[in-house]
Amino acid sequence: MKQVFFRTDLAIEMQQWMTERDGQAPDGVKVRTKVGEFVQATEVSILTTQAEEAMGRKRGRYVTLEAPLLRQNHTECLEETGALLEEVLQDFLALERRETVLVVGLGNRFVTADALGPKVVEGIFVTRHLKDALPPELQGAVRPMAAIAPGVMGITGIETGETIRGVVEKIRPSRILVVDALAARKFSRVNATIQISDTGICPGSGVGNRRMELSRRTLGVPVIAIGVPTVVDAATLVWDALHLAGVKEGEGKEAAEEVLLPYAADLFVTPKEMDAALQRLSSTIAAAVNAAVHPKFRRQDQGRYFY
Amino acid sequence: MKQVFFRTDLAIEMQQWMTERDGQAPDGVKVRTKVGEFVQATEVSILTTQAEEAMGRKRGRYVTLEAPLLRQNHTECLEETGALLEEVLQDFLALERRETVLVVGLGNRFVTADALGPKVVEGIFVTRHLKDALPPELQGAVRPMAAIAPGVMGITGIETGETIRGVVEKIRPSRILVVDALAARKFSRVNATIQISDTGICPGSGVGNRRMELSRRTLGVPVIAIGVPTVVDAATLVWDALHLAGVKEGEGKEAAEEVLLPYAADLFVTPKEMDAALQRLSSTIAAAVNAAVHPKFRRQDQGRYFY
Amino acid sequence: MKQVFFRTDLAIEMQQWMTERDGQAPDGVKVRTKVGEFVQATEVSILTTQAEEAMGRKRGRYVTLEAPLLRQNHTECLEETGALLEEVLQDFLALERRETVLVVGLGNRFVTADALGPKVVEGIFVTRHLKDALPPELQGAVRPMAAIAPGVMGITGIETGETIRGVVEKIRPSRILVVDALAARKFSRVNATIQISDTGICPGSGVGNRRMELSRRTLGVPVIAIGVPTVVDAATLVWDALHLAGVKEGEGKEAAEEVLLPYAADLFVTPKEMDAALQRLSSTIAAAVNAAVHPKFRRQDQGRYFY
Amino acid sequence: MKQVFFRTDLAIEMQQWMTERDGQAPDGVKVRTKVGEFVQATEVSILTTQAEEAMGRKRGRYVTLEAPLLRQNHTECLEETGALLEEVLQDFLALERRETVLVVGLGNRFVTADALGPKVVEGIFVTRHLKDALPPELQGAVRPMAAIAPGVMGITGIETGETIRGVVEKIRPSRILVVDALAARKFSRVNATIQISDTGICPGSGVGNRRMELSRRTLGVPVIAIGVPTVVDAATLVWDALHLAGVKEGEGKEAAEEVLLPYAADLFVTPKEMDAALQRLSSTIAAAVNAAVHPKFRRQDQGRYFY
Repeated sequence: MKQVFFRTDLAIEMQQWMTERDGQAPDGVKVRTKVGEFVQATEVSILTTQAEEAMGRKRGRYVTLEAPLLRQNHTECLEETGALLEEVLQDFLALERRETVLVVGLGNRFVTADALGPKVVEGIFVTRHLKDALPPELQGAVRPMAAIAPGVMGITGIETGETIRGVVEKIRPSRILVVDALAARKFSRVNATIQISDTGICPGSGVGNRRMELSRRTLGVPVIAIGVPTVVDAATLVWDALHLAGVKEGEGKEAAEEVLLPYAADLFVTPKEMDAALQRLSSTIAAAVNAAVHPKFRRQDQGRYFY
Repeated sequence: MKQVFFRTDLAIEMQQWMTERDGQAPDGVKVRTKVGEFVQATEVSILTTQAEEAMGRKRGRYVTLEAPLLRQNHTECLEETGALLEEVLQDFLALERRETVLVVGLGNRFVTADALGPKVVEGIFVTRHLKDALPPELQGAVRPMAAIAPGVMGITGIETGETIRGVVEKIRPSRILVVDALAARKFSRVNATIQISDTGICPGSGVGNRRMELSRRTLGVPVIAIGVPTVVDAATLVWDALHLAGVKEGEGKEAAEEVLLPYAADLFVTPKEMDAALQRLSSTIAAAVNAAVHPKFRRQDQGRYFY
Repeated sequence: MKQVFFRTDLAIEMQQWMTERDGQAPDGVKVRTKVGEFVQATEVSILTTQAEEAMGRKRGRYVTLEAPLLRQNHTECLEETGALLEEVLQDFLALERRETVLVVGLGNRFVTADALGPKVVEGIFVTRHLKDALPPELQGAVRPMAAIAPGVMGITGIETGETIRGVVEKIRPSRILVVDALAARKFSRVNATIQISDTGICPGSGVGNRRMELSRRTLGVPVIAIGVPTVVDAATLVWDALHLAGVKEGEGKEAAEEVLLPYAADLFVTPKEMDAALQRLSSTIAAAVNAAVHPKFRRQDQGRYFY
Repeated sequence: MKQVFFRTDLAIEMQQWMTERDGQAPDGVKVRTKVGEFVQATEVSILTTQAEEAMGRKRGRYVTLEAPLLRQNHTECLEETGALLEEVLQDFLALERRETVLVVGLGNRFVTADALGPKVVEGIFVTRHLKDALPPELQGAVRPMAAIAPGVMGITGIETGETIRGVVEKIRPSRILVVDALAARKFSRVNATIQISDTGICPGSGVGNRRMELSRRTLGVPVIAIGVPTVVDAATLVWDALHLAGVKEGEGKEAAEEVLLPYAADLFVTPKEMDAALQRLSSTIAAAVNAAVHPKFRRQDQGRYFY
């Protein structure tokens, strides 16, 4: 059986690779696709322990929105993506009355390709601190929402998971939304894909290979993860180049790996236009989160409240 | 007895005002001054409950470094200030072996006059996460240090004190160093003064009138506060103008207050050169903290590690 | 005749002060007001040389949009302000076919109260460099627009006017739109007012007391200025407090001024919520500029293209 | 003759590749090396038109400082690099009396890997605007220096070269120092190398493939370029992987290129620790520039003046 020689944080890439390798979908994995005008939504459900192991990720639902035009300033595509994302988030959050939502933006605000989480946090319409200070016309219009960007360990000296657990124990949210920049296998998915899952975040995922698991198991409440691949792993790129060229073991593959991989572990591949993409993606996600959580917030109001 | 019609976060200003008003130093308050070449250091000790009440602040030590040339790029003044600050911090921290220090940068990084705390955090040499991963030559050279900038409530929806308590309970530091931008009564002290105290932070202090008490009482470990006045309260400026002009009750004072004070509560007075001052002050403070905590970190290395 | 003891960059404040002082509008000044739901628009036209001198500003049109709710996240008020601003800009710009517009954002991006210009520039939909590379569906949809934030002299070592003249001579725009943060006399106008004028920028205006004149006379093409008061001059605040309290010459006014004014020249008074206001205002202005210049850009698309 | 299948902005990489390919150094290229404790300095001089063509870059001097420990917070290495850079800059600038130096920081401040130029500009001690306003003790201590970060075309709508030419014509500097982030062929040189050349900047170099030539020919005064490779071209990485594995034409190379290269043109490979490296490198370079230009500025003062 062929070994996996690439890294991806996207369930859909793993599922497609396995299906291609085996000639059939993995057992215990259900796939549903919905094709829109500019966006294709695919739900990969991992249903069994066996599928969990084969896919290398947790049982649960992974919805992927794929929209190649997201890379550009394509108005209708952004609108369709935002609307779909709002819908998926409402479904995953399943909020009833006044549950408090905590948004956690992972990543390093000083590295463009890793700044998605902190940037989304800047656009969140926080209301938890207002409580009864809210003007009457906003009572019922908003739910309590809080947002933190805990930073990365190299800057704080603190394992991010510790900070988050500390805050969660204090404010006791009913749902946690974790936003993170991810690594894809394929260039074509970078900045053109949004993955939403109900399984939280696993160690080793994210641009910075986060070390903590953030999930219902570790935090005690449902954790929904929103991720966008902003990079390809440099090692994955090397493996893919060799693979596509038909290079096999014993044919120089080792030579190439020996030279390139020691460095590749500390590198990632990212688009030159990352700054513009970051703005577009973080704004679209923040607007969808605000609209999914606050009953009367409309996504088109995002531009009025923020930026 | 004259009422206090100004706001200050500096113990020295309160002590001087009381001394001027009463013709003598307040009971239970001890003052010691040391005059350097460019910096004057004054220690105000509040010793009794009565003095606590009269001064409107907690029993403890308040060291103020006053250096008018801090406002400019005056090399020797910055050097003398940094050296004194390092010395005072070493005294206040009283670290023995491997105690963990947590630096907390209060304030809003997006408002120049309130960004001191987050800026200092950017310059802290964090080491807590390295533990045994430290190269042998650094073992003994550094102590475990961590640093967070919890943001302000209007951006996170979370009372800052909750975030800090959450993190403190997780990482259990032995000392906490809180850095904050303060309000002074007098223009001449803005960006030219550093206050260090062993009493932590009281509600209502800081540029943003922080709401939490951060002290040994609330956090369980010694809390040392470092503050720099970066603003004057706009209401204080109005009161001082009327006072200096000899305006008394019933002489139009009310008219002026009625027009100006409703707005003044949401305003502060800050120097046009705040951005340059912020860089200088935050770098000087971060270097002194690093040197006071890490046995082998020299302040002059700050420029090599950061920025 | 009463002397002017305040500083304002707003024509409307000068006109109101003169009208109050003299019991009638100044000669050669025409005032028209239009009251909307949340916004009041006032056009002050300075028509004669005499009026120019009396008002201390150039002959031309000054439209002021006053909207107290701009200070808050008031959706309808932002919408009405944006629509009015777009309309006024279209009138002032009087663009015909393919004229190139250059947007100049004055001020210091590192000082929140002075960052309006650079922030607006970040939200401008620049197209001048695309020329024939534009997809066919965008030909006719956009005009050539460029945007620069030349920085402030303390950071570049270059008089801002020199940089602007240098760029203008290279790219030869047909219209220049200068955006700047201003000083108001009254607190109540801060962050609640937008002034548009066809006279450009005069020396001594802006938060930083810009030194250059930017006008048709110095740049050779029509210069439209958009300004928002983000600060009150600290000296103005002191004078106003004394004035409102009825303090007159020889009554202690000198004492107050002697103590406070030496410092006040380097200070300004600004709202604590300046960061949020900056985001809202710069986004509203950028959207209105984009819509006024590009035939098919709608203000509501701003959120999709930027942030 | 083997074709070049990689992109590099470093003269030393091109020279080494040619020497390896041909078994001898290219004609008309002189190489001198000086080995320090932590830094190796290599001067590649291109002396003839023929060598110009073979090397694909302009006649002139290219000094490369190679310091693998630059990647880390290695104090002595940073110190040795800074000292060498100051020395090389003094040699290249050859300033006599009061010549004005203009520092130009190319690149996009919002993309970490492309922000070197704007970051260095933030640390330049500008003095050109002070002229006679300088305190007497600083007359003779500093030369007139100015600094601009003109931004990138996608944000301004203006070809960067136009902005620079416009400014140069206004302020007429005697020397121009251009700072830019570069692309290397080899991972090992990223963030560990500084190249200084007296040939200016050629089209197609820099992280963003700048479009303009900035040289004595186009700007009329000597242009010294300082560059640091912060990225590897993604296409270069693919080619190198195939080359190292011994893949030849007709053996699947085309398949790999067909799949990977269309995307690779818009991508680059960059270290995860780019933010920390950026701070270190920009501070080291700014300090060396300040010390090379201002007679009495010492590199160790950089931390006092900036950050």
